[in-house]
Amino acid sequence: MRRRHLVHVVSLILLALSGALGLTGGIALAYGDGDAGAFFVSSALLVVVGLLGYWRTQLARDLTVREGYAVVSLAWLAVGAAGALPYLLSGTIESPVAALFESVSGFTTTGATVFAQIEGLPHGILFWRSLTQWLGGMGIIVLGIAILPFLGVGGMQLFKAEVPGPTPERLQPRIAQTAKLLWYVYAAMTAAQAVLYLLGGMPPFEAVTHAFTTLSTGGFSPRNASIAAYDSPYLQYVTILFMYLAGVNFTLHYRAVTGRPGIYLRDSEWRFFTVLAAGAAALVLLVIVSSGLYDRSGFEVAFRDALFQVVSIITTTGFVSADYELWPIPGQVVLLLLMFVGGMAGSTAGGIKTLRIYVLARQALAELRKSLHPRAVILTRVDDRVVKEDVLLRILTFVIVYLGLFAFGALLMAILGNDLPTSIGASAASIGNIGPGIGDVGAVDNYGWMDQASQLTLVALMLVGRLEIFTVLLVFHPGLWRRTR
Amino acid sequence: MRRRHLVHVVSLILLALSGALGLTGGIALAYGDGDAGAFFVSSALLVVVGLLGYWRTQLARDLTVREGYAVVSLAWLAVGAAGALPYLLSGTIESPVAALFESVSGFTTTGATVFAQIEGLPHGILFWRSLTQWLGGMGIIVLGIAILPFLGVGGMQLFKAEVPGPTPERLQPRIAQTAKLLWYVYAAMTAAQAVLYLLGGMPPFEAVTHAFTTLSTGGFSPRNASIAAYDSPYLQYVTILFMYLAGVNFTLHYRAVTGRPGIYLRDSEWRFFTVLAAGAAALVLLVIVSSGLYDRSGFEVAFRDALFQVVSIITTTGFVSADYELWPIPGQVVLLLLMFVGGMAGSTAGGIKTLRIYVLARQALAELRKSLHPRAVILTRVDDRVVKEDVLLRILTFVIVYLGLFAFGALLMAILGNDLPTSIGASAASIGNIGPGIGDVGAVDNYGWMDQASQLTLVALMLVGRLEIFTVLLVFHPGLWRRTR
Repeated sequence: MRRRHLVHVVSLILLALSGALGLTGGIALAYGDGDAGAFFVSSALLVVVGLLGYWRTQLARDLTVREGYAVVSLAWLAVGAAGALPYLLSGTIESPVAALFESVSGFTTTGATVFAQIEGLPHGILFWRSLTQWLGGMGIIVLGIAILPFLGVGGMQLFKAEVPGPTPERLQPRIAQTAKLLWYVYAAMTAAQAVLYLLGGMPPFEAVTHAFTTLSTGGFSPRNASIAAYDSPYLQYVTILFMYLAGVNFTLHYRAVTGRPGIYLRDSEWRFFTVLAAGAAALVLLVIVSSGLYDRSGFEVAFRDALFQVVSIITTTGFVSADYELWPIPGQVVLLLLMFVGGMAGSTAGGIKTLRIYVLARQALAELRKSLHPRAVILTRVDDRVVKEDVLLRILTFVIVYLGLFAFGALLMAILGNDLPTSIGASAASIGNIGPGIGDVGAVDNYGWMDQASQLTLVALMLVGRLEIFTVLLVFHPGLWRRTR
Repeated sequence: MRRRHLVHVVSLILLALSGALGLTGGIALAYGDGDAGAFFVSSALLVVVGLLGYWRTQLARDLTVREGYAVVSLAWLAVGAAGALPYLLSGTIESPVAALFESVSGFTTTGATVFAQIEGLPHGILFWRSLTQWLGGMGIIVLGIAILPFLGVGGMQLFKAEVPGPTPERLQPRIAQTAKLLWYVYAAMTAAQAVLYLLGGMPPFEAVTHAFTTLSTGGFSPRNASIAAYDSPYLQYVTILFMYLAGVNFTLHYRAVTGRPGIYLRDSEWRFFTVLAAGAAALVLLVIVSSGLYDRSGFEVAFRDALFQVVSIITTTGFVSADYELWPIPGQVVLLLLMFVGGMAGSTAGGIKTLRIYVLARQALAELRKSLHPRAVILTRVDDRVVKEDVLLRILTFVIVYLGLFAFGALLMAILGNDLPTSIGASAASIGNIGPGIGDVGAVDNYGWMDQASQLTLVALMLVGRLEIFTVLLVFHPGLWRRTR
């Protein structure tokens, strides 16, 4: 472990973040809500810290796998802590733990908030909340498509062959090139959504911030009632569309835009993701319509609410168009199960990811066939490519460790005094980077009332979920920190 | 698939069951509660059916793997249906679905009951309930130690090398020899427990029936309050000891008895199982003592209740010494998590089994080390033997399919109108063959109030859990039933 290189990379990221803080300070100044100072001071602090770290170290062009893990974990922690500064300095959040919660919830694109009253917050703060998610989404695209597969986390190296990618041992500058192309797609889609929002009559500030938090599957909203605040089917359908797109692998979008629009249909994970979402929405629709809950508002509203909530949860966005806690239990159970599924690998969504669920389903079928034909060679395939046993093992281990950490998180939350639905809901919603859960942290609730120990538990779960578990767990492995130079 | 051979084996099993029904009829006659006729009629019916099936078919000495699956599934179904007869004929249960529920709950050693009022039932019925569990336990020992490893279900072929066992392609008569030795151990331990119960002042009938349902980790009791009915620490500690022993691999008991008492300590699954149970009991004890709930009754009672409930749930027995639903939430969450763990492979316990959990934990650690050393060869070992990748995959797939079926079961229960804790508790307690769950099917509740669709769902879950999933799932695979001769 060459610590100088680590410090250098993290310093660079903090310097970039100081730019984002400065930009937000400018916006705060324009709106004149009095919170501009908090951002400029935060920005200045990061410049100082960043430059100190930058000058005493050197740029590493050849990070090892081990250093890759350390950089990813350290950078996310540093950014999470730095992002809490403006909340504290502006006085909008008094508790440092709650500020850290809001910041990490932002950068991990979780979308759980400690604010009970969102409307009326200074525009700078509202913008910053959305921006942290948008930047977090950017970070996740690189992480998910370039860095994690290279590190071999959770079997995502399925993609290795597809992404113009790194050699097995050393990170290559090509990552930067891939990332840049994907960011163009990400930014272009954000702009498109904001324009569609404006056309539907959404105020410009809210159109931009909502677009930020949709493409990143974050789910922060400048409105108390989230998207339900607008009584506009058009705006809700636009949101559904872009939540769905944000849950799709961004390399597919890139290829579709660059001349291969049929690429989606040829991708089995995409078909699985889409059919799963549609099936879940149909089931929820059946449940809520047959309950008579939508007898007065009509079928279209039920259809829209079911689709909205299912897409919002499976993509781990967490926007709310209806208080699903008023729905019949089966509808809520479907949503709770979807919290574990998550979006496609290579998207900004959290959760286990549909790629892993899909591989798992194929593997279970293969196992069944193997039982009948013990001597036959039965291989698990995805898109006609054989998935090797060590990759399968890694994927399955990931899924079980994910479920184990969810259960451990729920147990910890219960020990800290939360009731059962809240413990289960908060743990699932945090490790899955969704935001709203069930129980006392449901669709219309927030996390501001929680004690600090519970909030810190959830912060840890958000990071664990976002960084695909092994990256975070390795931080506790002494072998990671052995000094090499 | 040679159906004649299948029918032959199942007919033999039904003939054996007719003997058990006749025995119970004799006991019913002795007590003179008026239910003897139901048993003799049931027995006679099975003799007729059994002989009809027996004479038109022939004994197969060379069952194939595929026929093994079919026999196991068919036999369990036939026995479950046949065992429901006396409940219906005696009029103690009116609904055929409820009678099937009680019978399958017995033979799968689940221990969920539809009786709200148990005391006052005819002695024949009470004896039959216990006997079904004891026979089910016997069946499971053969199933778990000899047949399933041979069929290659869920990675239990770890044991292949240990059990004087079958060759890869054809079932051998040696299974019978292994089974006989293990049954001696099983019967001797049952007798020992009954004697210890008698010494503690338990009435003879209850001593025998309780011993039947302890060694089989079944949990049926002739008393409404289960073991809590006796205000005797001695009887409860005896129960704890034998529940624990029933959760241990019976091949270890056999070896210990035949001159190697130190064998337990050398078995890493045993160490894992024991430490896990002790740790969970300590955590529960901490939770219930610190809640002040046991301030009046004292530490010893808290200690005993915590140990009793943890051992009862982890071994999937389901006896109750305290209403754990009155405990603080964290205590209940620990019990709920233990429902998934289960006892050791090769025991009569249900659940995922500690062997799989242990292998999984080793595999997760190996995966973590692999991340740091991508080029190193890191193998997962159990007791110094390397677990091959295909076996690991099978085990992990089993665990995930198990969890998936649990979730699906809970969803189905919710759709059928049950509330969330009840749906989760009933699904976990049924697929894990435990019995009592949480919610409306908690420690002091029963399953008699449920609608028939819910009961049938749970019957399916009990069978799926008991037959280690793949055996049951394969029944729906058309390839299994292809006729060969």
